[in-house]
Amino acid sequence: MARFNPLVETLAAPPIPSVFAWAAAYDGRNGPMIDLSQAVPGYPPHPEMLRLLGENAASRAYTGYGPIEGEDSLRAAYAAYLRETYGAPLAADNVHITSGCNQAFICAAMAIAGAGDAVLMSDPYYFNQETTLAMLGIKTRFAPCDPQNGFLPDIDALAAAIAPDVRAIALVSPNNPTGAVYPPALLSAIYDLCAARGIWLILDETYRDFLPAGAGRPHELFGRKGWEETLIGLYSFSKSFCIPGHRLGAITAGPAVVEQVAKIMDNLQICPPRSAQAAVATALPLLADWREENRREIARRVEALRAAMAGAPAWRIGAVGAYFAFIGHPFDGVSSARVAEKLAKEAGILCLPGSYFGARQEGYLRFAFANADVDTIGLLQDRLRRFALD
Amino acid sequence: MARFNPLVETLAAPPIPSVFAWAAAYDGRNGPMIDLSQAVPGYPPHPEMLRLLGENAASRAYTGYGPIEGEDSLRAAYAAYLRETYGAPLAADNVHITSGCNQAFICAAMAIAGAGDAVLMSDPYYFNQETTLAMLGIKTRFAPCDPQNGFLPDIDALAAAIAPDVRAIALVSPNNPTGAVYPPALLSAIYDLCAARGIWLILDETYRDFLPAGAGRPHELFGRKGWEETLIGLYSFSKSFCIPGHRLGAITAGPAVVEQVAKIMDNLQICPPRSAQAAVATALPLLADWREENRREIARRVEALRAAMAGAPAWRIGAVGAYFAFIGHPFDGVSSARVAEKLAKEAGILCLPGSYFGARQEGYLRFAFANADVDTIGLLQDRLRRFALD
Repeated sequence: MARFNPLVETLAAPPIPSVFAWAAAYDGRNGPMIDLSQAVPGYPPHPEMLRLLGENAASRAYTGYGPIEGEDSLRAAYAAYLRETYGAPLAADNVHITSGCNQAFICAAMAIAGAGDAVLMSDPYYFNQETTLAMLGIKTRFAPCDPQNGFLPDIDALAAAIAPDVRAIALVSPNNPTGAVYPPALLSAIYDLCAARGIWLILDETYRDFLPAGAGRPHELFGRKGWEETLIGLYSFSKSFCIPGHRLGAITAGPAVVEQVAKIMDNLQICPPRSAQAAVATALPLLADWREENRREIARRVEALRAAMAGAPAWRIGAVGAYFAFIGHPFDGVSSARVAEKLAKEAGILCLPGSYFGARQEGYLRFAFANADVDTIGLLQDRLRRFALD
Repeated sequence: MARFNPLVETLAAPPIPSVFAWAAAYDGRNGPMIDLSQAVPGYPPHPEMLRLLGENAASRAYTGYGPIEGEDSLRAAYAAYLRETYGAPLAADNVHITSGCNQAFICAAMAIAGAGDAVLMSDPYYFNQETTLAMLGIKTRFAPCDPQNGFLPDIDALAAAIAPDVRAIALVSPNNPTGAVYPPALLSAIYDLCAARGIWLILDETYRDFLPAGAGRPHELFGRKGWEETLIGLYSFSKSFCIPGHRLGAITAGPAVVEQVAKIMDNLQICPPRSAQAAVATALPLLADWREENRREIARRVEALRAAMAGAPAWRIGAVGAYFAFIGHPFDGVSSARVAEKLAKEAGILCLPGSYFGARQEGYLRFAFANADVDTIGLLQDRLRRFALD
């Protein structure tokens, strides 16, 4: 038999389907499954979003090939939204639309690194970023985040880990899996470190729209002079508009980066799917109030989670933020996969093992609490209290 | 400034947008532009296709994440269509849906080769396959196709080019750019060569549905015992359903290949866009008669092209097939890009220079004649006859 690429053959199978298999084995004894596994909003898209998706998909205007970089309408609408979010003069030519944020990440990674180069990540990390780099032959280096410091990255640990082969630091804020929100001052210091060392900062802000209302700007980096030479921002429309099945994300970068990404995207996909881009271009300003209400709803879910966890004190909140909580389980020395599997099959709580996000994370589980409404989150307290291993 | 990946930085810009810039400079002196540049059907999608796209995009059923490998409905419907096309017992688990055929190619390439490996292609080649391999650090080797033999690949040239680092032969039939249809016996011999040498045969059949009616099966390879260990088939729904903007393609392979591709796709995109998959699953059996009529229409366009070229005998048909013709221009020693640019700007004929498909192809132009209707193709004769270089 002809051979496979060993970098791909040795990758673990995608984790989410294996977790769904645990869910299928739950007998319902505690009531309906509480699904905190995949990061999917637990409320439906706005009816107007669905109407726009349908209207544009039925239009002949979007059946042909479109611009590689994305529809002009969406690039302009997203740039306007970026200007508002960051207070920085971003324009349509700072935007490259992608088919989801995983695709934004692989495009950014390929633009700046090849096989044999390295990318530095914080640990825990988002697993698809690690496997993306691994399958490309790009080495990964890790700077551990201190649980005692709310899983924030440590600037000294990052600086110490920048070996000569490191081409970028890749971070996620608000973080997946921990939920930790990286303060603007920390992001600023990491940016300075990257600029000083001549490497890129790839900053995935998929969960940015769920920062608490009134928290201020996520950071000031897009306002820095010369930011285009250091910063590449990533984003997903999936969570904010509840449309992951339509696969839309974006890269925010300097035109020189956008030019490199366009060459990659042309090979990867020619152009992102068009009709959903047109729909989101209209929805971005139109559904601003609805997204604000969702931001408040997610904040209510954070409070519900804190309350539930306070009633199950053997389980600890390592960090909690815009979309996720990183929960310390009470079973020292037991693998996180074993705990998660038993939680799914016996307690009806579906979450991801910490080990999926790094070998150091066996003591933790990722709860994608934003998937569940306040009442459902309230059910966690009793199920966690009563949960026992064997 | 932080650095780019040199493999990407040194890639040429995507060729299609640069050709569109030539078109914009045409002053209309000969009447409307005859656009034979990008491979896009020159007729609209069926109204029922648009209705299905709209209906499914407006449905909440497809807003969430879907299966990595593609919607069950489309995998099953496409497998049924494959069984009919090839007379081979293909099933849904032989199918991985992708976001277009470029994505099918990069997934197949990554599954079987990494940086430092090599893939053998025929020359001329489809440019996105070459740039895809280049940006991944996969070396490309080429076996030239003989213009005297209708640009068919030569089995001895292929065999001689299989160096120890070659992991696959990648072919396109019906060919892009030449239009040459590779006979079943030739494909069978190339398959045998690959099997004997323990390398993959990646066969892109994007234009399969436009083979002449009654031409018989494209090949018998999916009926070979153990084909899963050698063959990976690629396909695009874009051309047959006139929906390239919705980005849908497919890989046909053994379950072991599908398993590797799923790991890659999870990193690349999580899942292909869902609602268009559901629409095509319904359209595949429903619009079979419409696709047959399109097959006949494309055959009429082939005849119209032959007639037009017969009236402009200084221009030679190097090969012509399902979607493309590879046309020898009469200007010895002049670059194909110069001829194509002048044809666009002065004669109102938009096509791609042969050099985009290989350094040996300066004497040729690619005409994507399927873009134009019979009457428009008829206009070529006069414009080509009158065309002169300075």
